[in-house]
Amino acid sequence: MLILLKPGATEVTASDVMTHLRMAGLAVHRTDHDGRARIAAVGDLSAVTFDDVASWPGVESAQKLPRPFKLASRAFHPHDTIISVGRAMVGAQAITIMAGPCSVEGEEQAFTIAAAVAKAGATVMRGGAYKPRTSPYAFQGLGEEGLKILRRAADANGLAVISEVMDTQQVGLLSRYADILQIGARNMQNYSLLHEVGLTRKPVMLKRGLSSTIEEWLMSAEHIMAQGNQQVMLCERGIRTFETYTRNTLDLNAVPVVKELSHLPVIVDPSHGVGIRDKVAPMARAAIAAGADGLIIEVHHDPDHALSDGAQSLYPHQFDELVAQIRTIAEVVGRCV
Amino acid sequence: MLILLKPGATEVTASDVMTHLRMAGLAVHRTDHDGRARIAAVGDLSAVTFDDVASWPGVESAQKLPRPFKLASRAFHPHDTIISVGRAMVGAQAITIMAGPCSVEGEEQAFTIAAAVAKAGATVMRGGAYKPRTSPYAFQGLGEEGLKILRRAADANGLAVISEVMDTQQVGLLSRYADILQIGARNMQNYSLLHEVGLTRKPVMLKRGLSSTIEEWLMSAEHIMAQGNQQVMLCERGIRTFETYTRNTLDLNAVPVVKELSHLPVIVDPSHGVGIRDKVAPMARAAIAAGADGLIIEVHHDPDHALSDGAQSLYPHQFDELVAQIRTIAEVVGRCV
Amino acid sequence: MLILLKPGATEVTASDVMTHLRMAGLAVHRTDHDGRARIAAVGDLSAVTFDDVASWPGVESAQKLPRPFKLASRAFHPHDTIISVGRAMVGAQAITIMAGPCSVEGEEQAFTIAAAVAKAGATVMRGGAYKPRTSPYAFQGLGEEGLKILRRAADANGLAVISEVMDTQQVGLLSRYADILQIGARNMQNYSLLHEVGLTRKPVMLKRGLSSTIEEWLMSAEHIMAQGNQQVMLCERGIRTFETYTRNTLDLNAVPVVKELSHLPVIVDPSHGVGIRDKVAPMARAAIAAGADGLIIEVHHDPDHALSDGAQSLYPHQFDELVAQIRTIAEVVGRCV
Amino acid sequence: MLILLKPGATEVTASDVMTHLRMAGLAVHRTDHDGRARIAAVGDLSAVTFDDVASWPGVESAQKLPRPFKLASRAFHPHDTIISVGRAMVGAQAITIMAGPCSVEGEEQAFTIAAAVAKAGATVMRGGAYKPRTSPYAFQGLGEEGLKILRRAADANGLAVISEVMDTQQVGLLSRYADILQIGARNMQNYSLLHEVGLTRKPVMLKRGLSSTIEEWLMSAEHIMAQGNQQVMLCERGIRTFETYTRNTLDLNAVPVVKELSHLPVIVDPSHGVGIRDKVAPMARAAIAAGADGLIIEVHHDPDHALSDGAQSLYPHQFDELVAQIRTIAEVVGRCV
Repeated sequence: MLILLKPGATEVTASDVMTHLRMAGLAVHRTDHDGRARIAAVGDLSAVTFDDVASWPGVESAQKLPRPFKLASRAFHPHDTIISVGRAMVGAQAITIMAGPCSVEGEEQAFTIAAAVAKAGATVMRGGAYKPRTSPYAFQGLGEEGLKILRRAADANGLAVISEVMDTQQVGLLSRYADILQIGARNMQNYSLLHEVGLTRKPVMLKRGLSSTIEEWLMSAEHIMAQGNQQVMLCERGIRTFETYTRNTLDLNAVPVVKELSHLPVIVDPSHGVGIRDKVAPMARAAIAAGADGLIIEVHHDPDHALSDGAQSLYPHQFDELVAQIRTIAEVVGRCV
Repeated sequence: MLILLKPGATEVTASDVMTHLRMAGLAVHRTDHDGRARIAAVGDLSAVTFDDVASWPGVESAQKLPRPFKLASRAFHPHDTIISVGRAMVGAQAITIMAGPCSVEGEEQAFTIAAAVAKAGATVMRGGAYKPRTSPYAFQGLGEEGLKILRRAADANGLAVISEVMDTQQVGLLSRYADILQIGARNMQNYSLLHEVGLTRKPVMLKRGLSSTIEEWLMSAEHIMAQGNQQVMLCERGIRTFETYTRNTLDLNAVPVVKELSHLPVIVDPSHGVGIRDKVAPMARAAIAAGADGLIIEVHHDPDHALSDGAQSLYPHQFDELVAQIRTIAEVVGRCV
Repeated sequence: MLILLKPGATEVTASDVMTHLRMAGLAVHRTDHDGRARIAAVGDLSAVTFDDVASWPGVESAQKLPRPFKLASRAFHPHDTIISVGRAMVGAQAITIMAGPCSVEGEEQAFTIAAAVAKAGATVMRGGAYKPRTSPYAFQGLGEEGLKILRRAADANGLAVISEVMDTQQVGLLSRYADILQIGARNMQNYSLLHEVGLTRKPVMLKRGLSSTIEEWLMSAEHIMAQGNQQVMLCERGIRTFETYTRNTLDLNAVPVVKELSHLPVIVDPSHGVGIRDKVAPMARAAIAAGADGLIIEVHHDPDHALSDGAQSLYPHQFDELVAQIRTIAEVVGRCV
Repeated sequence: MLILLKPGATEVTASDVMTHLRMAGLAVHRTDHDGRARIAAVGDLSAVTFDDVASWPGVESAQKLPRPFKLASRAFHPHDTIISVGRAMVGAQAITIMAGPCSVEGEEQAFTIAAAVAKAGATVMRGGAYKPRTSPYAFQGLGEEGLKILRRAADANGLAVISEVMDTQQVGLLSRYADILQIGARNMQNYSLLHEVGLTRKPVMLKRGLSSTIEEWLMSAEHIMAQGNQQVMLCERGIRTFETYTRNTLDLNAVPVVKELSHLPVIVDPSHGVGIRDKVAPMARAAIAAGADGLIIEVHHDPDHALSDGAQSLYPHQFDELVAQIRTIAEVVGRCV
């Protein structure tokens, strides 16, 4: 249920309304826009009626939230959510660029790449320390040692850090080293993990599952937000279709769709989306033209020797050139880099 | 088999090589780049060997064409194909913009829209006279009367005409009125129809089937080209995936992929690709950013009363604004409008 | 609109109702069940109301047909449609088994296989004379010569003939040689071709398109039936999914779904559905267990030398064994072979 | 690498070979068939060559395991794996039937259903206590209380218990109450969870992810087996396709494919696969006809009031009838119930 308070309703009124809703067994969330409070009450609505609530003092209207995601919906939160991470304001006018290697492989690799991407314009460094791999026999990441290297390389270059958390038991560890907790596509519906990161106050980047509908993706964001963590950004990284020429099918249609349905920022990952180096730049440009709030891109100075995903990593000079193109396209859509 | 002649090989030599190949039962196609002839010989290769052919006078090399599409491949034809239609040079530096209503509905509708799209920058007018409809009980198009109206509306505004041909028996009729014969997605593997338009010398726009791989799409182009018609442009119009929020999933990944594999121009149809009016412009911008050679867009001055596809048609003023944005994005990728 | 006449309504009454509906611009189709006439009136319903029609003499009720397919729906035609072809009664209690080579390759091949499949229990012989091939350079079938051979081989063994028609201009030719006209998956939405076979009185087998929903498939059947030809059987032959281990994904779920939605017989083609010889028998057994009315199976006595689809053709002795298993499974679901 | 020892190789020889492989940094697994040892050595193979290993005493051959899954492959383990759970021998000649409610809702519900399914022929009771739900606001299961009820209801009726584990931290708890740990489709690539259940010695049922290829599914089994737990059964429960009439598309093709590639038992879940009550029995019959080793079916005595998945649950009398049909079909494929 979405309750809109009257303009000028006092804090006491707002507090009363929220207390009454809680007493009816509902979870209550509030957001303010244009000087008015909006309250989302979620849970079993059988103890209250819309008409009842609409008649309470200070309440202007009470209506059904039209979609199964509530806190993630624009109906509840009309303005864009902006998430502040280091120098980045994800979801604000400036496009956020995250870049770095697929996996952290060592000190030299991480520092070399961090310097390159920072110089080109990135404000967040990516790098995996725990890697979900299809094969149990493949490289699984450097673990905590990788996180330490990543943190130092990022700090040395004024970058924030994003890294993947694979398990509820890793959330504390990752929270110590990373500024953004990444939930991978394979874990998009690992609800225990969503619950756990929802209990932190760290920004979360939620990747879309390989065959998840947009609605399921937003419902997974809702799982995080329902625990109290509103700092969620979404990441489109390609869906599975019948086409096998590209690694996945980057679904840029999702960008304008999500921007309409939700207030959460949308980041696009063209590296995993297409999986072919020379197709990354065209799709990155297209993502910004379609309205994405940011990009996350794999960059490696020596991709032929990368321990994972070398074939889709940009060389630093390609990344430089891409950021320059993004700058112009961003202006066309009222953004900047 | 791809045969590269030596630089400076005479026409007599080239002619001899082609005659020998034909005598071996092969179909022979020739293209010239950088002053040298390339010859594609297709069919049953059992009567000749690569080594034999490579030893013929004037032949520099004879090699396997690496993919099942031959004439459509960049290996055979390294330069971009440019197709001249009215004022448009499809595949050249300038982006080609095709626009118009889904169906021709009458004189006034067609002339109103033609004037609007011509003024905004389109050079080709689209409009269906024969409509493939899922239901036998739905509006099937105005037929020849529609073609006449379309032709007049386009002529009055200096536009070329593209319209769909559904059947081998309609090819002659469509050829009289249209400058580009459109093969619809449902007919992408209607080989009899591909054969028939391959026998004409009209430019053909081949839409990608709803669940066709890129390779199958290029193989269908090959069916046309094998009959002698090299003027084929490809049109990405959305594929079928599990996502139901959008009508289809516009697969922009296909744009850079096809540009690498083939020399044929690629047009993107965001209207059918997403099927939602306010998502058409973002995807059109993205298509150009990804490297498409052109766009085909549904425009209607009164979409609420359109007989088909109103919900995805742009208003003329939206189309105007979109073309302006496209102009800037085109420059980023070395193109113009 | 579905109009149910009262029990005992006379032929004159029925005729009056139908005339009135036709005068309102509607196409009218009639079927009788349990001694009562049902009339489907399709087209633009704006000239009549349900209440009006329900008040006409002899009319018991007039209601909306709930789905976009009308003549193909069980609501209009509650009993199973049975199509008589040679010795086969497709859709009746006995399972219909169609078998033969992918392509007719010559006299000896056709006669050898015809004898084998007839002996095992098939009543219809399959065999392609015009083959839709992805490559224009692949074997395209023997054409009319193939049809003649097929007819003779079938006649010599008491079999009916099914063969594919690819084009409106071939309908007459195919009708002379075949008892069932097959529409291939690639042509499922070739509406010109559906219209043309709808004008014949030959039984038609409509294969499901590679990425067609069940509703679109039934709508294509409706295109045929709307022209007057009610003898349509449907053929599930595998859909396109992300899984690449099998050639296609045979969708047996479609069998019970179509049997509920429609009165038309459903044939399953496990050969194209999985495309791997030793998976054909398990899927054929499963099809019958799921409620299919028949099977169409590729059988070849020398599959290693088949000109097409050898890898998925059963050897005659495998086909024998399969038919024996089918016999027992058929009994479990109240059928026989 | 797959190493086959000579017939009659002694235990000392086998032990030496395994030690040498371990010293080369490889993980070593052994299985014996027809009196001969087979050893799979997995990991980084750079320290040994196939020729070297083949020349070791007692070694007959050393070859590449042809697929990325090693322990799960038939090449390593030619005979069917049989998993003993209560009275069930999963993978043996008798078909295993698992049945019960989607969620445990209370004492009476669980005991009523347990009695019904035991009487009909089931040997394992299913029932969720922790439910992965798309919405954070939906019923999430009774938790440990549900497990206790489930255990008592099963024990009272001589049934084993299968229940879903959603998180690494739940593995201990679930292991106390359940005989088979179920990994749900959404967690098929939750590698932390696979690792954790791989460390137990409990049988695991691994459901196929909604859009997972067969190879990815077997790779996830490999993640479990690489930790030492060989008691893995696979469960096909429907994949995501474009078809929306059914909840998912039950992919029975996967049954014969997995039975060829792997020695692990395959269970089919028609309830989630189609999601429509009256389509469950046809697909269950089809699964057995296709060669499945067992079924897992949702049964509820009062599905209209079920807290989850009521629309796809069979009534007990429908389940009875289904088991009777399965009995006959099982015989056709050399099995029994």
